[in-house]
Amino acid sequence: MSQQTNQSWGGRFSEPTDAFVEKFTASVDFDRRLYHHDIRGSVAHATMLERVGVLTANERDAIIDGLAEVEREIEAGEFPWSVKLEDVHMNIEARLTEKIGITGKKLHTGRSRNDQVATDIRLYLRDEIDAVDAELTRLRHGLIELAASEADTIMPGFTHLQTAQPVTFGHHLLAWQEMLARDHERLRDCRKRVNVMPLGAAALAGTTYPIDRHVTAELLGFERPAENSLDAVSDRDFAIEFAALASLLLMHLSRMSEELVLWTSAQFDFIDLPDRFCTGSSIMPQKKNPDVPELVRGKTGRVYGHLMGLLTLMKSQPLAYNKDNQEDKEPLFDTLDTVKGCLKAFADMVPAIEAKSDNMREAARRGFSTATDLADYLVRKGVAFRDAHEIVGQSVAYGIAQKKDLSEMSLDELRQFSDTIGDDVFEVLTLEGSVAARNHIGGTAPDQVRAAAQRARDALQAMTGEG
Amino acid sequence: MSQQTNQSWGGRFSEPTDAFVEKFTASVDFDRRLYHHDIRGSVAHATMLERVGVLTANERDAIIDGLAEVEREIEAGEFPWSVKLEDVHMNIEARLTEKIGITGKKLHTGRSRNDQVATDIRLYLRDEIDAVDAELTRLRHGLIELAASEADTIMPGFTHLQTAQPVTFGHHLLAWQEMLARDHERLRDCRKRVNVMPLGAAALAGTTYPIDRHVTAELLGFERPAENSLDAVSDRDFAIEFAALASLLLMHLSRMSEELVLWTSAQFDFIDLPDRFCTGSSIMPQKKNPDVPELVRGKTGRVYGHLMGLLTLMKSQPLAYNKDNQEDKEPLFDTLDTVKGCLKAFADMVPAIEAKSDNMREAARRGFSTATDLADYLVRKGVAFRDAHEIVGQSVAYGIAQKKDLSEMSLDELRQFSDTIGDDVFEVLTLEGSVAARNHIGGTAPDQVRAAAQRARDALQAMTGEG
Amino acid sequence: MSQQTNQSWGGRFSEPTDAFVEKFTASVDFDRRLYHHDIRGSVAHATMLERVGVLTANERDAIIDGLAEVEREIEAGEFPWSVKLEDVHMNIEARLTEKIGITGKKLHTGRSRNDQVATDIRLYLRDEIDAVDAELTRLRHGLIELAASEADTIMPGFTHLQTAQPVTFGHHLLAWQEMLARDHERLRDCRKRVNVMPLGAAALAGTTYPIDRHVTAELLGFERPAENSLDAVSDRDFAIEFAALASLLLMHLSRMSEELVLWTSAQFDFIDLPDRFCTGSSIMPQKKNPDVPELVRGKTGRVYGHLMGLLTLMKSQPLAYNKDNQEDKEPLFDTLDTVKGCLKAFADMVPAIEAKSDNMREAARRGFSTATDLADYLVRKGVAFRDAHEIVGQSVAYGIAQKKDLSEMSLDELRQFSDTIGDDVFEVLTLEGSVAARNHIGGTAPDQVRAAAQRARDALQAMTGEG
Amino acid sequence: MSQQTNQSWGGRFSEPTDAFVEKFTASVDFDRRLYHHDIRGSVAHATMLERVGVLTANERDAIIDGLAEVEREIEAGEFPWSVKLEDVHMNIEARLTEKIGITGKKLHTGRSRNDQVATDIRLYLRDEIDAVDAELTRLRHGLIELAASEADTIMPGFTHLQTAQPVTFGHHLLAWQEMLARDHERLRDCRKRVNVMPLGAAALAGTTYPIDRHVTAELLGFERPAENSLDAVSDRDFAIEFAALASLLLMHLSRMSEELVLWTSAQFDFIDLPDRFCTGSSIMPQKKNPDVPELVRGKTGRVYGHLMGLLTLMKSQPLAYNKDNQEDKEPLFDTLDTVKGCLKAFADMVPAIEAKSDNMREAARRGFSTATDLADYLVRKGVAFRDAHEIVGQSVAYGIAQKKDLSEMSLDELRQFSDTIGDDVFEVLTLEGSVAARNHIGGTAPDQVRAAAQRARDALQAMTGEG
Repeated sequence: MSQQTNQSWGGRFSEPTDAFVEKFTASVDFDRRLYHHDIRGSVAHATMLERVGVLTANERDAIIDGLAEVEREIEAGEFPWSVKLEDVHMNIEARLTEKIGITGKKLHTGRSRNDQVATDIRLYLRDEIDAVDAELTRLRHGLIELAASEADTIMPGFTHLQTAQPVTFGHHLLAWQEMLARDHERLRDCRKRVNVMPLGAAALAGTTYPIDRHVTAELLGFERPAENSLDAVSDRDFAIEFAALASLLLMHLSRMSEELVLWTSAQFDFIDLPDRFCTGSSIMPQKKNPDVPELVRGKTGRVYGHLMGLLTLMKSQPLAYNKDNQEDKEPLFDTLDTVKGCLKAFADMVPAIEAKSDNMREAARRGFSTATDLADYLVRKGVAFRDAHEIVGQSVAYGIAQKKDLSEMSLDELRQFSDTIGDDVFEVLTLEGSVAARNHIGGTAPDQVRAAAQRARDALQAMTGEG
Repeated sequence: MSQQTNQSWGGRFSEPTDAFVEKFTASVDFDRRLYHHDIRGSVAHATMLERVGVLTANERDAIIDGLAEVEREIEAGEFPWSVKLEDVHMNIEARLTEKIGITGKKLHTGRSRNDQVATDIRLYLRDEIDAVDAELTRLRHGLIELAASEADTIMPGFTHLQTAQPVTFGHHLLAWQEMLARDHERLRDCRKRVNVMPLGAAALAGTTYPIDRHVTAELLGFERPAENSLDAVSDRDFAIEFAALASLLLMHLSRMSEELVLWTSAQFDFIDLPDRFCTGSSIMPQKKNPDVPELVRGKTGRVYGHLMGLLTLMKSQPLAYNKDNQEDKEPLFDTLDTVKGCLKAFADMVPAIEAKSDNMREAARRGFSTATDLADYLVRKGVAFRDAHEIVGQSVAYGIAQKKDLSEMSLDELRQFSDTIGDDVFEVLTLEGSVAARNHIGGTAPDQVRAAAQRARDALQAMTGEG
Repeated sequence: MSQQTNQSWGGRFSEPTDAFVEKFTASVDFDRRLYHHDIRGSVAHATMLERVGVLTANERDAIIDGLAEVEREIEAGEFPWSVKLEDVHMNIEARLTEKIGITGKKLHTGRSRNDQVATDIRLYLRDEIDAVDAELTRLRHGLIELAASEADTIMPGFTHLQTAQPVTFGHHLLAWQEMLARDHERLRDCRKRVNVMPLGAAALAGTTYPIDRHVTAELLGFERPAENSLDAVSDRDFAIEFAALASLLLMHLSRMSEELVLWTSAQFDFIDLPDRFCTGSSIMPQKKNPDVPELVRGKTGRVYGHLMGLLTLMKSQPLAYNKDNQEDKEPLFDTLDTVKGCLKAFADMVPAIEAKSDNMREAARRGFSTATDLADYLVRKGVAFRDAHEIVGQSVAYGIAQKKDLSEMSLDELRQFSDTIGDDVFEVLTLEGSVAARNHIGGTAPDQVRAAAQRARDALQAMTGEG
Repeated sequence: MSQQTNQSWGGRFSEPTDAFVEKFTASVDFDRRLYHHDIRGSVAHATMLERVGVLTANERDAIIDGLAEVEREIEAGEFPWSVKLEDVHMNIEARLTEKIGITGKKLHTGRSRNDQVATDIRLYLRDEIDAVDAELTRLRHGLIELAASEADTIMPGFTHLQTAQPVTFGHHLLAWQEMLARDHERLRDCRKRVNVMPLGAAALAGTTYPIDRHVTAELLGFERPAENSLDAVSDRDFAIEFAALASLLLMHLSRMSEELVLWTSAQFDFIDLPDRFCTGSSIMPQKKNPDVPELVRGKTGRVYGHLMGLLTLMKSQPLAYNKDNQEDKEPLFDTLDTVKGCLKAFADMVPAIEAKSDNMREAARRGFSTATDLADYLVRKGVAFRDAHEIVGQSVAYGIAQKKDLSEMSLDELRQFSDTIGDDVFEVLTLEGSVAARNHIGGTAPDQVRAAAQRARDALQAMTGEG
């Protein structure tokens, strides 16, 4: 009988819900993940209702004890989840009422599923953000320490994937770290906006019961109650803002992944990833594939997609709550799972990256990577920059034809293009000379890299309280 | 021991896979859904291998019988799925080998997981497209028949959500049908491109075994083998093309949903949806919410998101197969589930829509919906169109001030604005007169609507073989 | 001659650039918009170069005067923009050199177009963010004042677009204001991250000249120099973060627009928009269309698209600068133009919204909007909430059949469903009683709305220094 | 005076349009691009109106001559475009009326801007699709011929960017060609759906004039008139379908671009791109950057963004035309420009790619690319595939330690892992032997590549009538 199954709202209805519709519109298969936060919210709500005199102390205690029992059932896998009861909220409330009788029905006084679910998701997301924060901290830490230990390792820096100028591997790793530092800031900014309490908005307009929202907010660790009930039940900004920062984070991981894949190719051969982070091929016995970075790169699309899905979901919805909003959970949950998994994989893997410094150095020696240094040398000797650029361009054209790098040319060869060039040129054409000369904040000189690593360490510690 | 667990590629590796990485990179939790099509592909592959002499008839039979047993185990829920075996393919092959011994290992001769999975997804998607096709046909059929029976029901047509001109409800429903007819065409076009066989591409370059791909293609009902092995293992166009057409389809359903939500509001009150397609509120006893259209509208974001995710996934991937591609399955599967669910919900619900024709008619009477008819009347009397427009604009301004529709004004009132207006004007100001006058192909005249419904019926039958 | 046209890098090249490629890869048609900020950056760079001894005071002055003249030419429309010179930077530098001779070539010392363009965009975006901030402030101000003046105006609150409970129009407007307040916070958070200086990163690794980046940063009003040169030239987070917050903002405007369109329909008829914000139809003389909200709703897609485009752009790019990044500008510029235009249109229009309070009130009276109040009344009389819900549900079913709202039923009629109901019930069934009873922070009671408007006023002033 | 400026719909309005709103809502700045197709549609409409007796022959001729004059003015840059006249349609009609007097006002009889703009875009898009088709044909042609001439050139095939198996460069190029062949099919499928005529739908319901839509459709080369007037004015599927196929096409070009960038890097060094397709650096004199593929890769985001923008635009719009739809043009136009530009750049560049076959070959020799061949060899000698895989895996581990490829090991070294290995093994370990052995349809054997190129040539000719 439908009137029984839809006991929460059956009175006005003249026929039971269609069986397929019941299943199609139910959310319990995915929102059950919120059970712990739903119960936590209910405990706070009951506590507040007693303080303002809506529940007796006995009723409050019965509810809190009953909910504890329900939570134990769920965690033991013994809870009788039912699609007929639509969602996690009704499942828990119905079970509570089975256990403690009519008092269970009083729990819903002064609230609605609209403000309840908005509260649950925020509590859940707040905890998950903290878990993301911890993995992100761990990854940044790993990058900083690896960078510090590779501050002197020279590799080619690329623009357009063409050899540009020598940099140090430590400098490159700190570039990654900077990206993540911004993501970390954005995560903290988002958390502030997540930490606001919808509870008390009831269905959309507030409630006629004498609730005290400041009490509930304090019990749940929220910074403040939401200012407007209509907004509180319909706002899903927090999920979208999280998906947006997650997209930026995955974008950054995709860039690191791309480089890891390049660097483990036979053509670059700049690093080694330990076997435990790689997999093989069922058909090609020689293969050792960088699966982790490839998969992380692939998961970027997943998170971008969730962002776009959530933005589309909310487009043009009139106030206040609409059923559409039920679609907010799955993309948010999957975004969280994806971000946590990818960060964990990277935080585990990064410290195990082994630089093949000889290969890096050899690659930096090729490709005329010190051409800019030669131009700068000429400028210091009084040649205008644009003219120096032209002189070096001609030297490079000669080098390509002769298959010689600049540092491999004789002084006479070099002087073909400008007689300003003297013996001292060979110092600036060395890799060490080149990197050491970029000696200002943000530059690739090893001393700068070490100093930058220390500043990054300090900033991370200041942010997280961790070393 | 990893060397055992990763038996498909362990030889080259010196340490076992990291436990988290093993789980992070495994796909069996979601790709097991392909089991039936994986087995179907393997049966065809074994059959072909026997025909070309790579397997003996006994080996082939052992494999086919073993696979049948595996499939029975899976369907009985008795199959020991293992994350250590990574994916559905290795799980099934390993189980087959447990059952039939070393012959099981021969099944993988001349193929790779790269072409195997590409084949599985295409077989799976082809079946699912046919299921989508059936629901779409059912929905179009429902729309056509409802349209035919509402060919004379007058409602206001809107542009900018402002009352524009009277139309018939049947005409409006056929607009929906036209949208779906295009989606149906796109579905068929996509199916053609899905129905091409990657098998035989092996890892990326083809195989050294004397395979006959035409045989396998025929056994599996594919139109032809894919032309290029590198392309065959890396192409995921078919999934993206499906997601794109699914996005268009959901876009259309979101538009219908928007209108259903509007029409069931107290303000419009144009239709009734049976209680069985609606749900209530846990707090507001009077509520009857149009959950199905709201939810379908919300699911639009989900499908758009999957499209964007898949496009991002494939962006800038070098050939041939990369691990990123493992991320193609979940969005495709969820897109299919969503499309099928939404179409089924609509196909069930549409025939049960009850037009409140009195309310529709009353709404059409308001809002000066026949103002264009008055202008056309004036043009027929010799007034230039732009001048007629101005005259009617002034009549409307008067009507707003007097709270009178055009048809409620006296002849004298109307003649204030143009003495060209005569007694015969009232005929063109009736709703029936207005709709009947739009009597050309595509117009809203009831006879045209009936004719259009008949053409739509014929076209659907021609396409599907169904009435 | 190519060697002339591509004078900035021609030395190494043996043939001129293909004519189509030259046009295809040039950016000057859109990046010329950055001219003012490019010049501002160059002035600061030259000033710093003089301080550290790379330029003489005379050279610096010649450059600064020359740039001032170039800027005047541009603003007078007399500047000879050339596609051959690729971008805004080379156009300006070439023109400077025409004017002041060889000294002009020295301006590029110690920098590259890579750090130059990154600096220009940040300077530009920072100014544009401030312009967006001003319009957003103006719109929020308009909403708060309108809300305060409509704190007592009763309208139906909707969930699922079904009448839910009465709210006040002021409360509804403050819900909009809350959305925008969050967007405003996000805008400020983004500005912090925009305000970091890439200049000094040079091509990718820093420069060998003795630059002082703190000087330049201070001259340009940046909070600090960027920490890492590789990151500085390749980071486009700031553009994506802005596009993400712009997407949320447009999402909010799309929701407001949707409601404005609904409310101006004949079916709702809740508000009037002045004629000056509407347009008409070339064919239907009676039409007055809410073009502004429709167009803003439509522009949501545009901004979502730019966000997705920018995320895609950056996916999987290896460090450091790649030509792909040239594609960052057009979506960012168009996002800024769109956001500013939409905010201006809304800030102008919102104060002119005229509530049709009689229509709102009449709509709130219908649809059993006080059903929850009746249930709450029963609970206060001792009925359990779920039972009260059932009783009211039956009353509503009766009301639908009899076409009577709850407040229109006699006491006897109401007592059919529960004899707990007494004479005092009619007080809770009034609209005024219903809204006044939701009297807690965030609730719709007029006193709460007034208090909330005052808090919003204070918060906006605290944020912007404006009343 | 507003009544003058908005002469097309002023009668009902009491105040002029706000100046900013007028500009904000006008479309003439971008829709003027449609002028030719607007005029073409008007000529056909006038011709039809005369045939059915609504216009006289003289009126028709005056209109057609007047429009020809207007078109000449536009093409000469002498047309007085006016934002006050909103859009291209009103601009042209107003100018026509200035030229030919009151007859010009009769042109709009029986149509509306709603069906007019829908017709214009379809006419425009149809022509643009044909231009895209031509460039795509040219690019495919270039790929096929280059592939045929490189059918014997051996390079490493990659999976996971790890050396997998040798393939031929011609085979790789044909993989690209296959991708484009599918895009070409999709383009043709889309064109069918574009080629349907909205004209006659008028504002939304059809018209009361005795129009003959079949006549107009024939005059304009449309396959048929659209079946439903409401659908005809609100349908934007054709733009979205085009954006979706353009996204797939750009995705494919981004993949080719990624490979071109990789291949021109110093690390791969597989190909050379002529200088005329590359650009240099303003600071690094040695740089030669593959700008064209980089920029094309970057433009992928732009097109994805437009797709997402258009999908968002149409989500949840009620019928029929809404102002939102004005936002369809810019993304469509920019998608077309981008697609045409990228295809032209590639079609010009591809035939000029120079394979560095020695480098390719050397890379293929490394990385154990014939390991699968060794495994297959063992299988042919009777070893089960999975065991052969293990044996080869161990050989590879030995090779890595000894820095020897399989083909560089002595027979004794190889026999350490299996005494099944004999003298004949070296034949299968050669690159030529490896590729020649993959000798089935779709395989990389040179003969297969040549045959595949011939089939591709034939298919392209069959599709386009071009060789």
